[in-house]
Amino acid sequence: MSDSPVFTPVSEVGEFGLIARLQEVLGDAARSESLTTPIGDDAAVSDLGGGRSQVITTDLFVEGVHFDRTFAPLRALGWKCVAASVSDVCAMNATPTLVTVALGLPNNLSVEGAEALYTGIAQACERYGCTVAGGDISASARLVVSVTVLGEAETERIVTRAGAAPGEVLCVTGDLGASAAGLELLLRGKEQTLASGAPPEAAETSGDGSPTISLTPDAAPIDLGQFPTPLERHLMPQARLDRVRLWREVGFQPTSLIDVSDGVASEAHHLSIQSTVGVVVEAGLLPVHIQTMQAAEALAKRAETWALYGGEDYELMFTAPQEALEVLPKDSYAVVGNIVEPEEGVALRMPDGTVIPMEADGFKHF
Amino acid sequence: MSDSPVFTPVSEVGEFGLIARLQEVLGDAARSESLTTPIGDDAAVSDLGGGRSQVITTDLFVEGVHFDRTFAPLRALGWKCVAASVSDVCAMNATPTLVTVALGLPNNLSVEGAEALYTGIAQACERYGCTVAGGDISASARLVVSVTVLGEAETERIVTRAGAAPGEVLCVTGDLGASAAGLELLLRGKEQTLASGAPPEAAETSGDGSPTISLTPDAAPIDLGQFPTPLERHLMPQARLDRVRLWREVGFQPTSLIDVSDGVASEAHHLSIQSTVGVVVEAGLLPVHIQTMQAAEALAKRAETWALYGGEDYELMFTAPQEALEVLPKDSYAVVGNIVEPEEGVALRMPDGTVIPMEADGFKHF
Repeated sequence: MSDSPVFTPVSEVGEFGLIARLQEVLGDAARSESLTTPIGDDAAVSDLGGGRSQVITTDLFVEGVHFDRTFAPLRALGWKCVAASVSDVCAMNATPTLVTVALGLPNNLSVEGAEALYTGIAQACERYGCTVAGGDISASARLVVSVTVLGEAETERIVTRAGAAPGEVLCVTGDLGASAAGLELLLRGKEQTLASGAPPEAAETSGDGSPTISLTPDAAPIDLGQFPTPLERHLMPQARLDRVRLWREVGFQPTSLIDVSDGVASEAHHLSIQSTVGVVVEAGLLPVHIQTMQAAEALAKRAETWALYGGEDYELMFTAPQEALEVLPKDSYAVVGNIVEPEEGVALRMPDGTVIPMEADGFKHF
Repeated sequence: MSDSPVFTPVSEVGEFGLIARLQEVLGDAARSESLTTPIGDDAAVSDLGGGRSQVITTDLFVEGVHFDRTFAPLRALGWKCVAASVSDVCAMNATPTLVTVALGLPNNLSVEGAEALYTGIAQACERYGCTVAGGDISASARLVVSVTVLGEAETERIVTRAGAAPGEVLCVTGDLGASAAGLELLLRGKEQTLASGAPPEAAETSGDGSPTISLTPDAAPIDLGQFPTPLERHLMPQARLDRVRLWREVGFQPTSLIDVSDGVASEAHHLSIQSTVGVVVEAGLLPVHIQTMQAAEALAKRAETWALYGGEDYELMFTAPQEALEVLPKDSYAVVGNIVEPEEGVALRMPDGTVIPMEADGFKHF
């Protein structure tokens, strides 16, 4: 490679560093008059005319990086790929319309396995009211699923990551860290199964979306059956389209919005950068499901760490002036922090009042 | 796998058989009032209102299946992924608008390599007048690129695969088989390089789109430099957006339309099934580039086989009543056959008048 002056490993610049460099390469190819939101939000927004906008988002799910077929049933995987992309559409305050699916199939996946995957895709599309418009299928060494989702909204209802202002409150829907808890439980279950000498059940054969880890009684100090919520949140997460619909019904409009796919810490940094504000997250206010706490205890982990740095919760994080929240049902959100001046950066306030800077470290793919 | 009654290998049902089974699984999830063309055309069509339609198409490109990095420069690969999907938009008689790219990066691909890939993506987008709206990047064992392209057209200008009628003529743009010739040349070049003991040049380092195979003089019975057109057609093919624009200018509207991505034989079968017609292709009328013929001679292959069963030409194949062609410049198309009654099936007429049934065998991914 004598004519290659530099070989920089992607790990050296990181995912976001790489994206920045590729965006620079794209230059004008990533700019257009009709594109009203540039690359870097949850989804791109283009003007459809007549007061309507279209959003578009693409996600790639790679075996061994995003999922493990030894414990993720294929039907659940199909569901999750759609739900994760629908979540990006929700994070623009839009409603999903069309879906395309590109599938790379390894030769150890059967026609029946592909059907199970597509059953999950169909069920998620039905749940979220969108239609599979097309796709592509190819052979591949490992299972790869790429999902593109289109969505729509009145242009005035679109909410980006840029719009938070000092003095507003930071809120989330649902609870946090359950997906990370579910993943750790499943990994522990797999470990225990392997240690017991039993082959892990082929995920492909389960088909009903339930966790497929069967632990032999004497090798199972942790009973996965005690934690259905974290397992389900990890395997078949929900996009919060219900909240987007609720907000429309009650006339609520967040000032900024993002989905929690890489943990609260990472998303707080995105809001901070794109809204040019500081963010203070209150550790004591992070909503955590009781089973997530119990799982943390059983695994000797910290539920707060899952909430802050775990991934794939697919809850919505948003900002609004305190008084704007009055139209919302109290159980439809939780206040978890405050938007402050940009100089204050992104920080975590502990229950004892201590304030510490909060790193952005979410889930790292590289 | 005791609870899995059947394990059918994908190879047993084939790509199109698998697609049919997955379409059945999708059921209503693939149907919608706004979807005016169902799954199975080059792109899906949805109604935008106001007399406009949107088309959407997704393609997946997998290392080791669709491309070989030892001879496909990354910039060329980026170009090709966009051009191939833009070709599907052209095959609906529409114009591309937005592109999303999902990228699975192996750890042997550098930041500079990813930049070369994106340079090709940007150049193709500039050429075809579309904008990169977003995407996703993940780690992956092997390089994977999934491209989704949106396009638009007035609804009345959309052309599908269903619309050909007996008595019409079958036409193609450009010439055929050049891409297959280019691929065989590159494979032969790689073979020769490996046989000579020299490591193949890393495709990543070339960056300028030219073929990177350097043959040592004594191991090179075939000089790739004699065949620039087939090599370029394979590495950096063109989508025929120029023809779509020309047709609009002169007021020409094909009755059916498909792009030649799997060879004329396969596409003729698609038109036959989706238009419910028979198709007779005239072997003696297939347009073949002089360098494609020379490559066939040098490699002891048949150029007609490449034209009929080779892939990735990305020319447009269309039908029209003979008299409708009068508005078209003579050098913008070639008549290659006739549309006949469905009972006649899909056949090839040899120059001596013999008519033989034509198999659909295009490029097989599985």
